[in-house]
Amino acid sequence: MLKLMSAPGTCALASHIALADAGVEYELVLLDFANDEQRKREYLAINPKGRVPALITDHGVLTETPAILAYIAQTLPNARLAPLNDAFAFARVQAFNSYLCSTVHVAHAHRRRGTRWADDPAAIKAMRDKVPETVGACFELIEREMFAGPWVMGEAYTICDPYLFTLTQWLEGDEVDVTRFPKVNDHFNRMSARPSVIKALGELRAGRS
Amino acid sequence: MLKLMSAPGTCALASHIALADAGVEYELVLLDFANDEQRKREYLAINPKGRVPALITDHGVLTETPAILAYIAQTLPNARLAPLNDAFAFARVQAFNSYLCSTVHVAHAHRRRGTRWADDPAAIKAMRDKVPETVGACFELIEREMFAGPWVMGEAYTICDPYLFTLTQWLEGDEVDVTRFPKVNDHFNRMSARPSVIKALGELRAGRS
Repeated sequence: MLKLMSAPGTCALASHIALADAGVEYELVLLDFANDEQRKREYLAINPKGRVPALITDHGVLTETPAILAYIAQTLPNARLAPLNDAFAFARVQAFNSYLCSTVHVAHAHRRRGTRWADDPAAIKAMRDKVPETVGACFELIEREMFAGPWVMGEAYTICDPYLFTLTQWLEGDEVDVTRFPKVNDHFNRMSARPSVIKALGELRAGRS
Repeated sequence: MLKLMSAPGTCALASHIALADAGVEYELVLLDFANDEQRKREYLAINPKGRVPALITDHGVLTETPAILAYIAQTLPNARLAPLNDAFAFARVQAFNSYLCSTVHVAHAHRRRGTRWADDPAAIKAMRDKVPETVGACFELIEREMFAGPWVMGEAYTICDPYLFTLTQWLEGDEVDVTRFPKVNDHFNRMSARPSVIKALGELRAGRS
């Protein structure tokens, strides 16, 4: 059975929702970030990066949200979570998720994870201060240029949707008003009502799948 | 014909090498970053993110290195640049490239692109000062945990190899001694001798394919 290593408030929620979307059995394991469990030896043996998500499969461990999402879509094709028979459309899905991973999530991370990139407390504060601007600019681009509607990629729901939902959740904490982005905001509300999202968020609250 | 939008010194080199590896015809177009050509209206119509690479295909434009590399591998299967018939192995390739994109490249970008994440000049300097440490830590992890050898993924050369080569090139400028990482260093030297790498670097110098 697939085992997802996750933690509340992290981007692992995207993979969690995709597993629920796929209707596959999985075990959810939540790490205690408050106790730095993700940096303890036991977890580093699973994921030496000390981050979540990690998906433990019968073949080995997978990390990195875009890779895990594509793996779920490819190995559970009946769930129709990606355009698997169209290399260009699949690449567009991967490009969107790569943007979320390498630009949007990174912009957001400068709010609470500034110590990754600087030691000086004043620099860390300067990074935090700019987050509303940088995250806002990312979502402006998504709203204006990337979001096809009604789902991210158009008529078909894909692995881009749970990932966008996960990052949209963080806007309030980043002091970015989601109503500036009507399409993203509508997407967020529709996602919030999906059974897979309700299931995943419920399991996070309960602490288990 | 595929058209690659690139610029010298950027991560677009990874896609460029992969095109050369695949033996496909392509046109190389170099943007003049010194004149901010990547932020001019004409280019923003191609890639609203104002970044390279962008790959112009018959179906439309693709961005983001991990997505472009996977597209090249999937649409030119004879080049055998990825394990296309093994979803787990393919996901491992994607996970490695996602790590390069979202963590290693981002760590490097804090050297010269600090204005993306802070406005205060002292903060930008603080970010720059930490780059040798953060980039060095990324390559330690690659050397110790990720690099299978002789190629990134093991016996088979994949789209991970030109991407790792591209980022390894930047170590000297980031004040990280590549000889700390014997496997990565050996990989870099073997990559440098590959016809595809020699071809791509020559085209970058010549300004055209």
